[in-house]
Amino acid sequence: MLRLEHGQVRTPAFVPLATRGAVRTLAPADVRALGYEMVLGNTFHLMLSPGPDLIESFGGLHEFMRWPAPIITDSGGFQVFSMGHGGVADEIKGRGRSGRSDGAIVSIEEDGVRFRSYIDGSEWFMGPETSMQVQAALRSDIALAFDECTPFHATRDYTARSTERTHRWLARCLRWHDEHGPRGQTVYGIVQGGVEHDLRLASSQAVVQSGCDGIAIGGSLGRDKHQMHEVVAWTTAELHRLAPERPRHLLGIGEIDDLIVGVELGIDTFDCAMPTRLARHGIALVPDPAARWRVDLVKSRWRGCSEAVLDGCPCPVCAAGFTRGYLHYLLRAGELTGMRLLTEHNLGFIARLMADLRLAINTGELPRVAAALRAGAAPVGETQSSQLDK
Amino acid sequence: MLRLEHGQVRTPAFVPLATRGAVRTLAPADVRALGYEMVLGNTFHLMLSPGPDLIESFGGLHEFMRWPAPIITDSGGFQVFSMGHGGVADEIKGRGRSGRSDGAIVSIEEDGVRFRSYIDGSEWFMGPETSMQVQAALRSDIALAFDECTPFHATRDYTARSTERTHRWLARCLRWHDEHGPRGQTVYGIVQGGVEHDLRLASSQAVVQSGCDGIAIGGSLGRDKHQMHEVVAWTTAELHRLAPERPRHLLGIGEIDDLIVGVELGIDTFDCAMPTRLARHGIALVPDPAARWRVDLVKSRWRGCSEAVLDGCPCPVCAAGFTRGYLHYLLRAGELTGMRLLTEHNLGFIARLMADLRLAINTGELPRVAAALRAGAAPVGETQSSQLDK
Repeated sequence: MLRLEHGQVRTPAFVPLATRGAVRTLAPADVRALGYEMVLGNTFHLMLSPGPDLIESFGGLHEFMRWPAPIITDSGGFQVFSMGHGGVADEIKGRGRSGRSDGAIVSIEEDGVRFRSYIDGSEWFMGPETSMQVQAALRSDIALAFDECTPFHATRDYTARSTERTHRWLARCLRWHDEHGPRGQTVYGIVQGGVEHDLRLASSQAVVQSGCDGIAIGGSLGRDKHQMHEVVAWTTAELHRLAPERPRHLLGIGEIDDLIVGVELGIDTFDCAMPTRLARHGIALVPDPAARWRVDLVKSRWRGCSEAVLDGCPCPVCAAGFTRGYLHYLLRAGELTGMRLLTEHNLGFIARLMADLRLAINTGELPRVAAALRAGAAPVGETQSSQLDK
Repeated sequence: MLRLEHGQVRTPAFVPLATRGAVRTLAPADVRALGYEMVLGNTFHLMLSPGPDLIESFGGLHEFMRWPAPIITDSGGFQVFSMGHGGVADEIKGRGRSGRSDGAIVSIEEDGVRFRSYIDGSEWFMGPETSMQVQAALRSDIALAFDECTPFHATRDYTARSTERTHRWLARCLRWHDEHGPRGQTVYGIVQGGVEHDLRLASSQAVVQSGCDGIAIGGSLGRDKHQMHEVVAWTTAELHRLAPERPRHLLGIGEIDDLIVGVELGIDTFDCAMPTRLARHGIALVPDPAARWRVDLVKSRWRGCSEAVLDGCPCPVCAAGFTRGYLHYLLRAGELTGMRLLTEHNLGFIARLMADLRLAINTGELPRVAAALRAGAAPVGETQSSQLDK
């Protein structure tokens, strides 16, 4: 359980993305109704538009977007560095904006990063203090320290130097926050170090020693799931040894099997574009490990299919009786209602998965429940209280 | 009050468009929550995709789209003839589908209309029997007879001949429906006659004499609002004289002042793309007659504005505290949540307007309430029962 300025978050929890101040296609009440207690806003995008001053004039991001519960904001580092490291395509794709120019890094210096906006090509600067200043204006419950997200193809030498700079940036973030940050805002440092065991341990130690409130795990987590789980395991083991009480966030990870492993490794919170982005591309989450928990409803085989999106699923979409055939039709026709219904289904699926894992931890049954979910059991989303009510 | 196969509809009522089997951006439960009791599905679009057989295999459009209350389907005539008469642009614009070719009329004959699909250029035929057959497959509560929607620029001679053909088509529709139509489905004939007084009266007589269950007013209603109100007044007066008990639908009309006039002239139901289409273009409905009840939230003057979309508005969007500044930001950013929130606001506004007019009729205060709404009073949406509860 995280106790934050705008409320409590039961953990482990998944945190849906409200990248630009809205969970795409949904209203905040829909997201709350699915059981979510926190969303993630994107410092980089919100800095460029509508800008921190405008959001601050509303009293912060909670007031602006009418989300009454906790918000975590990322530092902007991932987006800024993606532009230089060539990973920005995924960030940019799937947005409704036309006439935008591609963003680009102008220079990376000790002070921070100079870059061009993807919106209008204008030049901007972001360093540790800028990031904290923007996050202070957003008044998020959890701010993340500014870091360089080193790509998988970086050399060991580059990764080592970058990770050390990330630690210096963390110190500057905490200094700025001590002097100027909002009182209720907590700050998480970010462990980097690529796929190097010693660098991950050193980074864990440096971040713990900085005295930050919580710890996020970022950067390249490897070439495949096996390596990713290994890197997370090294890091969580070290964090557990050094600072067992401090909450841990795993950045950008949200595939079903990865969430299960993450919970087993002691991760408290996760964020990922996956469930909402897949929904907008017509993919529904289902308990089918062989298909990576996915079914592509755009495929012509679902034309006219009268099966539920997921049989027995208690989400508002399946409970209302929407079929694979209807969703297929809406998606093919480009009807926005299709994306919206699948977004609710996918977020509902993940919410129930996390609720099952939370309950399993509380009842001491995590190994059994994790194994069942990993093998394709449908998450039921029973909370401790509803279990106790029986 | 209309008593239909899938339930009752309190009248006068506005009927939101679910053109292609969904009220764009919303789920059926949202539309119900706003107080709507009927939606309109589009025979032409649903015939082309996903096709009547597919929808019939689900048990009809109600089951397919999970709308539990009455549905009215238009005949498809308006869309088919729009392609020939050059008005298809509005129909086509604002859709999410790419790669479509423009549709076109191949020929108009006594039997019906041959045309090319806007989806793939394939050739199709629609006549009175086709239209009724498709609407039978959709199992709508109210089917509209197949008609030619004559354009404003048609000659008197063309309009006269077309209107007579529409009457012959109505007879064929009713004959087909008597033999093959679903039992619970009611059929409305459509009065045409352009802006010609004598043709409108003759058409009203012909449609009443056909014995159809209800009567829709279609076709060109004139060059401006004054003429439109005049044409509707001629027609409703004649219908009131000939068949006072039969329900009347006014096709494609939904501007606020027109709804008020329509109710005063005894119209029972209205459908129009306006409130939902305006929402997707960033325009909110507000009680401001001087601005045609519209405020364009895309305009830069709303940047950072902390006012409600409409002060004191009880709709779910305004009640949740969303501001003009936030909506402006979402609309500019192309975030789908913006369109969705405005769709709810606009449909909420119209639902309250109609509720106020219904209550005014029941309490004998229609002249006073209509005058107040026309002058810019905010609709409150008080129902008879909530009034009586006081």
